[in-house]
Amino acid sequence: MSDHARVSGFRFAGGACGIKPQGKPDLGLLVADEDAAAAAVFTRNRVRAAPVLLAAERLELGRARGILVNSGNANACTGKRGLAAARNATAALADALGVEDDLVLPASTGVIGVPLPDDRIRDAVPALVDRLSPDGALDFAAAILTTDRWPKVASARVSLGKSRAITVLGIAKGAGMIHPNMATTLGFVVTDAPASSSFLRRALRRATDETFNALTVDGDTSTNDAIFALASGRADVPSLRGDDRDARKFRDALRDVLAELGRSIVRDGEGAERVVTIEVTGAASEEAARKVARAVSASLLVKAAIHGCDANWGRILAAAGNAGVAFDPDKVEIRFDDIVLVRKGVGIGPAADRDAAEVMRRPAYTIRVKLGPGKARAHYLMCDIGPEYIRINAAYRS
Amino acid sequence: MSDHARVSGFRFAGGACGIKPQGKPDLGLLVADEDAAAAAVFTRNRVRAAPVLLAAERLELGRARGILVNSGNANACTGKRGLAAARNATAALADALGVEDDLVLPASTGVIGVPLPDDRIRDAVPALVDRLSPDGALDFAAAILTTDRWPKVASARVSLGKSRAITVLGIAKGAGMIHPNMATTLGFVVTDAPASSSFLRRALRRATDETFNALTVDGDTSTNDAIFALASGRADVPSLRGDDRDARKFRDALRDVLAELGRSIVRDGEGAERVVTIEVTGAASEEAARKVARAVSASLLVKAAIHGCDANWGRILAAAGNAGVAFDPDKVEIRFDDIVLVRKGVGIGPAADRDAAEVMRRPAYTIRVKLGPGKARAHYLMCDIGPEYIRINAAYRS
Repeated sequence: MSDHARVSGFRFAGGACGIKPQGKPDLGLLVADEDAAAAAVFTRNRVRAAPVLLAAERLELGRARGILVNSGNANACTGKRGLAAARNATAALADALGVEDDLVLPASTGVIGVPLPDDRIRDAVPALVDRLSPDGALDFAAAILTTDRWPKVASARVSLGKSRAITVLGIAKGAGMIHPNMATTLGFVVTDAPASSSFLRRALRRATDETFNALTVDGDTSTNDAIFALASGRADVPSLRGDDRDARKFRDALRDVLAELGRSIVRDGEGAERVVTIEVTGAASEEAARKVARAVSASLLVKAAIHGCDANWGRILAAAGNAGVAFDPDKVEIRFDDIVLVRKGVGIGPAADRDAAEVMRRPAYTIRVKLGPGKARAHYLMCDIGPEYIRINAAYRS
Repeated sequence: MSDHARVSGFRFAGGACGIKPQGKPDLGLLVADEDAAAAAVFTRNRVRAAPVLLAAERLELGRARGILVNSGNANACTGKRGLAAARNATAALADALGVEDDLVLPASTGVIGVPLPDDRIRDAVPALVDRLSPDGALDFAAAILTTDRWPKVASARVSLGKSRAITVLGIAKGAGMIHPNMATTLGFVVTDAPASSSFLRRALRRATDETFNALTVDGDTSTNDAIFALASGRADVPSLRGDDRDARKFRDALRDVLAELGRSIVRDGEGAERVVTIEVTGAASEEAARKVARAVSASLLVKAAIHGCDANWGRILAAAGNAGVAFDPDKVEIRFDDIVLVRKGVGIGPAADRDAAEVMRRPAYTIRVKLGPGKARAHYLMCDIGPEYIRINAAYRS
């Protein structure tokens, strides 16, 4: 692991507390040496899991000392009992750190509707606290996975002010979706940059819109999705604020880290073999471009065609037409990387389709949809869906 | 075939013109003895196929003499050439009938982006006109199929006025989705009831909203979806108008016929083994209920759970939460037929899950989602999606 997985002011640990069978890692701690500025973005699902409700409430403070993450159980649709369990579990970490309960944020991922065994978490916390280390990010990353095939860690280092570097480190778990109800996305970002919680919140919201909110595996948004950001301020640079050059550099680094994590999540979609960027240009507004990109990315028929390397542009055009956005179909151009398939809404012909099918064998490529003469653009990241996805998601919970 | 497949004033024929390989039926004619009142509802996709554009234009007349339907080619994304092909093909039928071109409506279903071989259609029309018969509905139904496993015909007979009967006959093809780009739904309704085109249009819009617009196989809306209604007025009853008892009886019959066709379409979803009704009650408005029913029906994770007979209510609640509708998750009740799975947003327990899994083995059942104390309700018809769906839709076009 590179130095970049260390961020001054933060320590991590990961281990097993017995939520998952066979001693698999299922509990992660992320702890700041002192109170850190904190912000988060949460799922837009109306049904919010207990840890989301509690974390959102506690984040009104604008600072946090630690995050307690468990996998194997989403603590969602668990009612008042679920909220009590989240309070109880986080209290164990607060006690061990000697801080107020409100400074510890909960996050959970796993099966919905099963009571969280908070007693097992409580029992496991003290030993994990002893193992907290500045080098523990990978242990933490492994403990928060559900069905992901690999841990997801990304970092960026940028120079601010007088050439002094700050680090942004991100850790995520994806929507592996192998097991029922395990499609939660969680993300955790720590930085040593000095930033207020309000600066952090705005930067996180913006970077999330450009990355995590512009990717789709199966179109479902879970009850637990959350991305947290904590800033220790340990780096010897002036406080980030407003919209100056340093603030922009920080935001770019944050976006790059989240984008890298997002790519890793899409690549890890179960049964997926390809990562495809849907790029929509020539739209009348950014919102219109985004809607079209989302509709194409979410179309099951498009995903299946991508899986089968079928340059089936009719499905793409039909999906775009379903986005609820006004455009003139006779102006649409579609390309797969550099192969033009459709011009003025009409197919070029079988030879172009064959060339495009070759592009589709690449592990990653871009489907470019130009809607018309507009200036706005957007892009989405998606993967194919193969029969394996359905087979696995149809299996009975066990 | 029962008598109900005859409607006074209409004749049908079906045959092959060589669009599909191996002489498979691919051309259907529906002809009225005299000009009939006519109306239609069309796809809401922004990308509308040439036959949709032309039929919509011609329906401004409010009457029609015939409908020419081909399968095997959607004549979509074919530009000006496609419009010319639709005009050319329908002119052949108009010539044979000795009527104005504008009285013949086109409909097409099949592969997108391939030029329509209108010359083959023209060559085949005269012989098919000779075979037009009041008993030809099933031939017509067979000729308009793409990947459906069976033809879809339904009828209703109701007494209006002084006990005189009228007949409503419906014929449809579904979204079999076996082959790329063949997910078009087409419906054709004929009746001997006397009705103006405006009455017919309103009745059709209403019945479609309650039936065809409340079912989902894979969430895609094609470039060619259309439902036509023609009324000959041959039945010896007073003209239908307004909202009196006869009008309501007619509308109920029309809705029943479309509902029956809709059920047949969903049952015929490729790889589907079950037809599930999603019933949402207790909503604040009908629109809210409909949005939730649609979101649950369209969720890939829900479809996969239904395929696997997994009473995975967390996915249903999470899908409902993604509908963009405000509700209190702590008030939600979920039942599978008569088995209560969730009360006040919390699962009843493993025994209930097991009982619900038994319900899920039934070929048809209802998932009931009660959102809260509201009075509004809606329902959607859906099917499961199995690995076969993806496998087939990923296959290269051949």
